[in-house]
Amino acid sequence: MGAHKGCILWFTGLSGAGKSTLAEYLVTEFKKRDYKVELLDGDEIRTNLSKGLGFSKEDRDTNIRRIGWVARVLARNNVIAITAAISPYREIRNEIRTETEAEGRAAFVEVYAYAPLDALVERDVKGLYKKALAGEIKNFTGVSDPYEAPENAEVTAYTSTETIEESAARILQYLADQGIIAAA
Amino acid sequence: MGAHKGCILWFTGLSGAGKSTLAEYLVTEFKKRDYKVELLDGDEIRTNLSKGLGFSKEDRDTNIRRIGWVARVLARNNVIAITAAISPYREIRNEIRTETEAEGRAAFVEVYAYAPLDALVERDVKGLYKKALAGEIKNFTGVSDPYEAPENAEVTAYTSTETIEESAARILQYLADQGIIAAA
Repeated sequence: MGAHKGCILWFTGLSGAGKSTLAEYLVTEFKKRDYKVELLDGDEIRTNLSKGLGFSKEDRDTNIRRIGWVARVLARNNVIAITAAISPYREIRNEIRTETEAEGRAAFVEVYAYAPLDALVERDVKGLYKKALAGEIKNFTGVSDPYEAPENAEVTAYTSTETIEESAARILQYLADQGIIAAA
Repeated sequence: MGAHKGCILWFTGLSGAGKSTLAEYLVTEFKKRDYKVELLDGDEIRTNLSKGLGFSKEDRDTNIRRIGWVARVLARNNVIAITAAISPYREIRNEIRTETEAEGRAAFVEVYAYAPLDALVERDVKGLYKKALAGEIKNFTGVSDPYEAPENAEVTAYTSTETIEESAARILQYLADQGIIAAA
């Protein structure tokens, strides 16, 4: 087992901004180093922990709090817990940060996957923006539902202008600087 | 950190049969040895993962599946995940066992906390059996809702006739015999 500390690596950002892609890239990197890592993505959590919840603010908050709780339990047991849900509301992200820091057993590292909305609408990998703009999807973050960008993210990944490797390298560098993982 | 493997230590049994007491005793023992251990008790899970669920069979099954999923994620990261919910239905417990064993990264150890119903009704620490027998609590396991005892529990703790220390010693012995924890 490689040497590392537990932490929560909390990705946030709009749909299509590259959260999952970056998260999966990092999972592969961490596994290469034999680190203990778990990726809690939005879909997996909705299947296993939040079936029945919808996309109202209240239900979204509940879903995010559940992801946060599982991530915290993992991180305090020396796992690198990566989350990749949109997590649009600043208050809930900060609540999870505060709980994690108050417990003092693992770091909370917020990574903002950022790309301008224009770029996301143009790329529209899953065709979701088109549907949302046509009013076919309700509560779509960034279109018909708010997204509150982080004010103090530990790392911002500029996913429309830098490569996955570049973004990942900056995240890994941050973790190494903080002593969470060994220097590469 | 003491040497041990991850596992799920799954307690099942009627209300008042001693699941939580035994689980908490073992948590203390494991912490003394510097093992990584998490206790997922029914109340904590209902607060953090299952708010809104009731006590119908369907809701109970969902709650138990969530506990099982979290326990499995922890156990595959070398944590001793202890659960102490009543978990009345054999099918659901066996489903979690099957998933855990199929994944092959951690053992599933079922511990049946057993005491005769008469003894539990007589002791009635929380006064719940009295209320259930008076019809004031619906869906009360063992009174107005079924409890399906395990058919192949790895360990049975006879909590009305042996001490906590005796039950705990047999569980620890089982774990040591299986190579999950170091011999005492």
